[in-house]
Amino acid sequence: MFSGCQFSLYPMSDNFVEVILPAVKAMGSPKDLRIETDDISTLVVGQPERVFEVVAKAYEAACRAGGHVVLSALFSRGCPGEPDDPLCTPEGPSKGPSNGAGSDSATRGAVTSPAATTTTVATGVEIDAQFSLYPLGIPGYMNTIAATVGAVKEAGVYDRSKNFCTRLSGDLAAVFAAVERAFEEAARDTGHVVIHLTASKGSPSKKQNSDSM
Amino acid sequence: MFSGCQFSLYPMSDNFVEVILPAVKAMGSPKDLRIETDDISTLVVGQPERVFEVVAKAYEAACRAGGHVVLSALFSRGCPGEPDDPLCTPEGPSKGPSNGAGSDSATRGAVTSPAATTTTVATGVEIDAQFSLYPLGIPGYMNTIAATVGAVKEAGVYDRSKNFCTRLSGDLAAVFAAVERAFEEAARDTGHVVIHLTASKGSPSKKQNSDSM
Repeated sequence: MFSGCQFSLYPMSDNFVEVILPAVKAMGSPKDLRIETDDISTLVVGQPERVFEVVAKAYEAACRAGGHVVLSALFSRGCPGEPDDPLCTPEGPSKGPSNGAGSDSATRGAVTSPAATTTTVATGVEIDAQFSLYPLGIPGYMNTIAATVGAVKEAGVYDRSKNFCTRLSGDLAAVFAAVERAFEEAARDTGHVVIHLTASKGSPSKKQNSDSM
Repeated sequence: MFSGCQFSLYPMSDNFVEVILPAVKAMGSPKDLRIETDDISTLVVGQPERVFEVVAKAYEAACRAGGHVVLSALFSRGCPGEPDDPLCTPEGPSKGPSNGAGSDSATRGAVTSPAATTTTVATGVEIDAQFSLYPLGIPGYMNTIAATVGAVKEAGVYDRSKNFCTRLSGDLAAVFAAVERAFEEAARDTGHVVIHLTASKGSPSKKQNSDSM
């Protein structure tokens, strides 16, 4: 299985470079991850729970720099177009080749559910977010999506449904835990799952919108 | 069919509000579109070609304000979870209910291919971009993705393949035309297609990366 994330940080500030670079460096250089940055996004390859962990860490670091900071992240697991990578495979389960969404029981079996059992430690950073989840290759994907939205509601960070996405609100750690759980839940139905997450902290528009709604 | 876009503009500047608001207003208030903005994104609902047109217009306006400006956009058509909307249906073809991806011949039939036949007028705004395309509900979705990447290559804006996405480079109008064409091409295989597009103009990292690659 291949899993990872392409993410970008957008600090709405003249000194955006001074916010982005330290935030990316906050992930460190762990041996169990491959991290590469270009001018559009940063790639993190590794086991999903580790990928979510370090992307949350980078975003938290950027948020603590102050101001309005947005994260845009694409999390993917099991894309049959990507070569397997040992970095992405948990120790223990057999490493089967990923030949297509929904066809790889080894991939589907290698699902953990950290957010379901782990108590998240609040960061104190309140964010708003929206995410879209795509279970690829299966006719019944709308049922999978509905189930993951249900899981997000249980996690207590659900705000409301929007066109094409689901809106969340809460502590950064809780929002990430809920999205990670949705990702893992969907992977029980198909090998190839993608989530796009947009997270926003410090928007000056928020108060205004809250007043009018 | 329901089609539209959720998009956000990220000017990396202290005066981001003064860039975003005029750019969103540059879309105008056309009667054939529904436009709604909250603190995370702006929704545009309407026929796909019109949606691409006004989102490109908003991003172009933001780019002309100067500096480093990013667009993040989710384009969607045919989501079976969204109600049909007359705004989204071209005049002429019958308006069948959208009951699921790949199951609605009326939806699949209502595909135009503007970018394939229309000559785009260059904006003079050079951008880098990356996009991911998700044809939902069909086992053969990887073939659909491969075909759309081929179409983007023909359009002359293909840069390279990255993990989880395809990187593009060129004039803003040419990049948008190629992505729109990929969107329409994929809709021939399934009713429900989503594209996530990230476009970047003026990144200070680009020169540095170009030098080292």
